[in-house]
Amino acid sequence: MLDRNVVEAIVRDVVRSNFARHAPPPNAEPPSSPKLVVSISARHVHLTDAHVKILFGKDKLTRMKDLYQDGFFAAEETLMVVGPRKRMLPTVRILGPTRKETQVELAFTDAISLGIDPPVRESGNLADTPGCVLVGPKGVVQLTQGVIRAERHVHMGPADAAFYGVRDKDRMKLRISAHGAADGCATTFENVLVRVAEGIKLEVHLDTDEGNAADLEHADKVELIK
Amino acid sequence: MLDRNVVEAIVRDVVRSNFARHAPPPNAEPPSSPKLVVSISARHVHLTDAHVKILFGKDKLTRMKDLYQDGFFAAEETLMVVGPRKRMLPTVRILGPTRKETQVELAFTDAISLGIDPPVRESGNLADTPGCVLVGPKGVVQLTQGVIRAERHVHMGPADAAFYGVRDKDRMKLRISAHGAADGCATTFENVLVRVAEGIKLEVHLDTDEGNAADLEHADKVELIK
Repeated sequence: MLDRNVVEAIVRDVVRSNFARHAPPPNAEPPSSPKLVVSISARHVHLTDAHVKILFGKDKLTRMKDLYQDGFFAAEETLMVVGPRKRMLPTVRILGPTRKETQVELAFTDAISLGIDPPVRESGNLADTPGCVLVGPKGVVQLTQGVIRAERHVHMGPADAAFYGVRDKDRMKLRISAHGAADGCATTFENVLVRVAEGIKLEVHLDTDEGNAADLEHADKVELIK
Repeated sequence: MLDRNVVEAIVRDVVRSNFARHAPPPNAEPPSSPKLVVSISARHVHLTDAHVKILFGKDKLTRMKDLYQDGFFAAEETLMVVGPRKRMLPTVRILGPTRKETQVELAFTDAISLGIDPPVRESGNLADTPGCVLVGPKGVVQLTQGVIRAERHVHMGPADAAFYGVRDKDRMKLRISAHGAADGCATTFENVLVRVAEGIKLEVHLDTDEGNAADLEHADKVELIK
């Protein structure tokens, strides 16, 4: 049985290489468009150092696969996430590095299957969010808050922000479409949150519901619109 | 443990009553806008009479709940849908009445969990679609084809088609949005297939991925755009 996280990692890689293939060559247009990558974030967990210790009995996560942004990675470790009434997701991937607060990011479909109703939030904004129970091989953590649906967002560096004429915290639109038979799922996502930081590559993060709704796997055109 | 189909039926009803509440009163505008209902179709199965007999050992489905369109209903009966490598969805609702061909409609998220890669198709267009196994209390049916992701579509009668200036098989856009904090998920779905028939009420059908991507549950505005 192929793990869903693995499937989604594969999908994500297909999408990446697809868009990389369709991205304009450097200097094709004046000014040249930045390479736009759209990634699907399958459900995942960010942990504090203290929670890594409790759940896995060790000091560090084990790097399995680098993510597109430098320094970020999918860990070998996974957790069981348990909701109310003992419904659970058995294998939720942990992303590193560790953070100051533990956070669980679910698509709404995941949350429904778990019996949790999380708000749509920017990463890190966890006040008044629901909790859950995390079960690892060495211990259990009861979170009183930290479960969110991550708000659709785009990471970019200052040069990309200048190219699009946007600033940190602005909102943009992302249109996903395809040629031919696959275009039945063309979709424009509004209110894509702009997050500008030094040293960050241009990358949109959607969740699995959004990626599936737009059939990103078969799309061949993505446009970021101010 | 609350069955997912029940949860989704509840969500659908909330959405319906919400939009009914926000619909303009009759003759509020010249010409008055038709009442627009957006329904989420959770994964479901349509069966032939012969398959009802094999799977349940009886001649007729049992009506559980009427759907919005007159004459259509959710049945008491559910099936297990089994994909390759024995992955399965244990409880998939059957919708009535019966049809000439058996058809399984899944969102992509469902299909990924089942290990099937269905194409996006108009209902009834089943050539070259994947099959699956249906398991009922009295028998088993092996489908060689019939699994699709239903293409997003809008049902309407001739008067509504005249109001919007569209014809059968045209394509429209559906914009879903909300006020305040819930607007982070505003989404425009393109290529919504128009299906015009006599005696049909105006109703958009999305699947769970689309409804969840746009957070339809918290939306308070839906617009059908030519």
